[in-house]
Amino acid sequence: MTETTDLDDELALDLALTSRRRFLREGGALMGGAVLAGGLGGSEAPAATAEAKAGNLPPDIPQWMKAPGDPMGSQLYGTPSPFEKGVVKNISKNLPQYISAAGRTPLQDLDGIITPNGLFYERHHGGVPAIDPAQHRLMLHGLVDRPLIFSMDDIRRFPSQSRIHFLECSGNPVYTKPYGKTASDLVGLLSCAEWTGVSLKLVLQEAGLQASAKWIVAEGADAAALTRSIPIEKCLDDAMLVYSQNGERLRPQQGYPLRLLLPGFEGNMNVKWLRRLKVVAEPAYSREETSKYTDLMPDGTAREFTFYMEAKSIITRPSGGQKLAANGFHEISGIAWSGHGKIGRVDVSVDGGKSWQQAQLQEPVLTRALTRFRLPWQWDGQPAVIQSRAVDETGYVQPTFAELLAVRGENSVYHNNAIQPWRIDAQGQVTNANA
Amino acid sequence: MTETTDLDDELALDLALTSRRRFLREGGALMGGAVLAGGLGGSEAPAATAEAKAGNLPPDIPQWMKAPGDPMGSQLYGTPSPFEKGVVKNISKNLPQYISAAGRTPLQDLDGIITPNGLFYERHHGGVPAIDPAQHRLMLHGLVDRPLIFSMDDIRRFPSQSRIHFLECSGNPVYTKPYGKTASDLVGLLSCAEWTGVSLKLVLQEAGLQASAKWIVAEGADAAALTRSIPIEKCLDDAMLVYSQNGERLRPQQGYPLRLLLPGFEGNMNVKWLRRLKVVAEPAYSREETSKYTDLMPDGTAREFTFYMEAKSIITRPSGGQKLAANGFHEISGIAWSGHGKIGRVDVSVDGGKSWQQAQLQEPVLTRALTRFRLPWQWDGQPAVIQSRAVDETGYVQPTFAELLAVRGENSVYHNNAIQPWRIDAQGQVTNANA
Repeated sequence: MTETTDLDDELALDLALTSRRRFLREGGALMGGAVLAGGLGGSEAPAATAEAKAGNLPPDIPQWMKAPGDPMGSQLYGTPSPFEKGVVKNISKNLPQYISAAGRTPLQDLDGIITPNGLFYERHHGGVPAIDPAQHRLMLHGLVDRPLIFSMDDIRRFPSQSRIHFLECSGNPVYTKPYGKTASDLVGLLSCAEWTGVSLKLVLQEAGLQASAKWIVAEGADAAALTRSIPIEKCLDDAMLVYSQNGERLRPQQGYPLRLLLPGFEGNMNVKWLRRLKVVAEPAYSREETSKYTDLMPDGTAREFTFYMEAKSIITRPSGGQKLAANGFHEISGIAWSGHGKIGRVDVSVDGGKSWQQAQLQEPVLTRALTRFRLPWQWDGQPAVIQSRAVDETGYVQPTFAELLAVRGENSVYHNNAIQPWRIDAQGQVTNANA
Repeated sequence: MTETTDLDDELALDLALTSRRRFLREGGALMGGAVLAGGLGGSEAPAATAEAKAGNLPPDIPQWMKAPGDPMGSQLYGTPSPFEKGVVKNISKNLPQYISAAGRTPLQDLDGIITPNGLFYERHHGGVPAIDPAQHRLMLHGLVDRPLIFSMDDIRRFPSQSRIHFLECSGNPVYTKPYGKTASDLVGLLSCAEWTGVSLKLVLQEAGLQASAKWIVAEGADAAALTRSIPIEKCLDDAMLVYSQNGERLRPQQGYPLRLLLPGFEGNMNVKWLRRLKVVAEPAYSREETSKYTDLMPDGTAREFTFYMEAKSIITRPSGGQKLAANGFHEISGIAWSGHGKIGRVDVSVDGGKSWQQAQLQEPVLTRALTRFRLPWQWDGQPAVIQSRAVDETGYVQPTFAELLAVRGENSVYHNNAIQPWRIDAQGQVTNANA
């Protein structure tokens, strides 16, 4: 199979255009009958056809076929292509380094539902500790029959479980007027991985809970000693002590060597670098549940212990900072998630919220995991506002920002799960319609 | 929550032992009634209790809590902890670099079913090409109505799909007497990821298949121009043109910027760095389907076009090179997979194959994906041989090596899916029972 092609340049130019017309005609059937399905191209010839005239095309043998490539063993642990060097975490530059450090996942550059470990979001209050797993211990004490101390080897000997779940910071984005240009700027404190660890319930049974046990105070081994109180019901439900993410051991930024995972609960409660669990009768009212992670309501009271991340979604493609190359066919794709369970449905509007269509959900649809949705769309080249709206299996519907504001007032900071609209101008440029 | 603990050293020593006895007594209930469930420990006190006497324990504040940790931004693209530097690809050192280069996934160090991209197995015949995606083209020609050339932007405009599938080299391990010390040595040319790309069927419909189209010859843009013929039925079923793995763009070692994915088919047919698809009436009988990837059968004929990877499994923990620290409770855990669909059942034997017990399968169980299985086990400290046996949804049962040998004879090289037994000696050391 080394013969050159029977395809000449004129033919390529002609047929690329023809085929796009054919796709336009038959697109509905190809895409399962979706109403908006259409041609791939549009009025502009794709870039490839222009290059065909210049002859800069296969079957010319590209330079990378003319000599052996990178030899085996140059990367014992692989890294992305140098051509992807722009796909990195989105670091907040103007926040105090050791108080509100945040690195966001570049959601607009990613596909599917798994976040690669190198791009998993990070958020910490005292830097990332460099913990020697051989020296790390977890202490379990308080209202238990038998206080216990575990090494990592002890933890690893328990029966294990693996589950795919999202994690999201409660301030994603920080409430007030929505800011940010890209999907990452807005909701990049969000990632999803396959986690492996031990059922917390099993470990608690090992220690023996006393009747008065109602909360567990979890403490991290970072310089901030981040501390949160967790209701005992969650600890006895699906909470896990996690040591691996996406197959390999936790990354330092995600709590190496051990973290708490509370599926569906706000990120900071999933205490990283976990060193201590104290079983108590009342919550600790720690720094992270008084001065932070509470919200001042219009009636002057504090909204506290806001555990669950409510249903939410965002279109990642096309999204802010991207540009539609031409009118015609585009796939609208995004992610939806809910702390309360599975995503039931995602609606998409391409007319500023006047009408909505149901998007296709990509299998598998897992509880408390990112779910990818898709909708074929024929862009007519006119300005448009596109947005998505998640509905979870409980029937809860993702609200607009105006609806949130009406309930929570102006001073709320966390748990902004509002619909995110994107504006597309006549040139195809996509921007934040709220900014 | 900064008070010191109420747990003193003597108490820790006492209770750690007590709690292990309790776990032994109640273990059956904790682990869903599995017959073999038992205590975590056994006759030896865990390491932590010994250290308790020396006072080298929490609540002593560890050094990493006494000063801020690594600041934000030091890793725009994250890497594993330095303490995990031994978890890397397992490179074959004594094979010719540009003919049979192979880097294996360290399966015995991994959990769950997703392989992190940095540890995904690699196998290539001409090194890894450094392809500029802006210059890369895919040509689709031959028995089609409209030959087409696609840029990566063209490919990305098609409707997308994401699916979790395994990939496995057909020589994993190379047949003949099984060799290798670890799970990685034996079946490390195996990984699993969430892939995103375009349905090949959709792209073929765009070009228009002619009635005589029976095979598609796929060619890679590496220095080896790896070329394979694929039956048209697979191309119109679940074949994909893939550009992303685990959310981010393909790694160079896995075919950046574009590869073919033929779920369940032997690895080399999933052509990487894909540059050409020629639709033909007969297979090409290329180098990779004549001199390689065929097997000499006992009757002197060649077994060719052995597409499917048959059902297979391996215990990864405990596995070769590992050591059981003590008798008592251990979880047996491993992975199972089948090119023909979902895993239906995995049986585990702890007595050299005399009796078998059904393992628990970890959800989600996906078609043509790795499936994690688990079985609680009480090791009595005596020598033992443990092994797993996969049964897929078609009812196919993973064979023993003797059964394979009886059918295929001595000269077969590829598609060894035999049961892999591990020997455990009285000291807990685990070795390859076939070696």
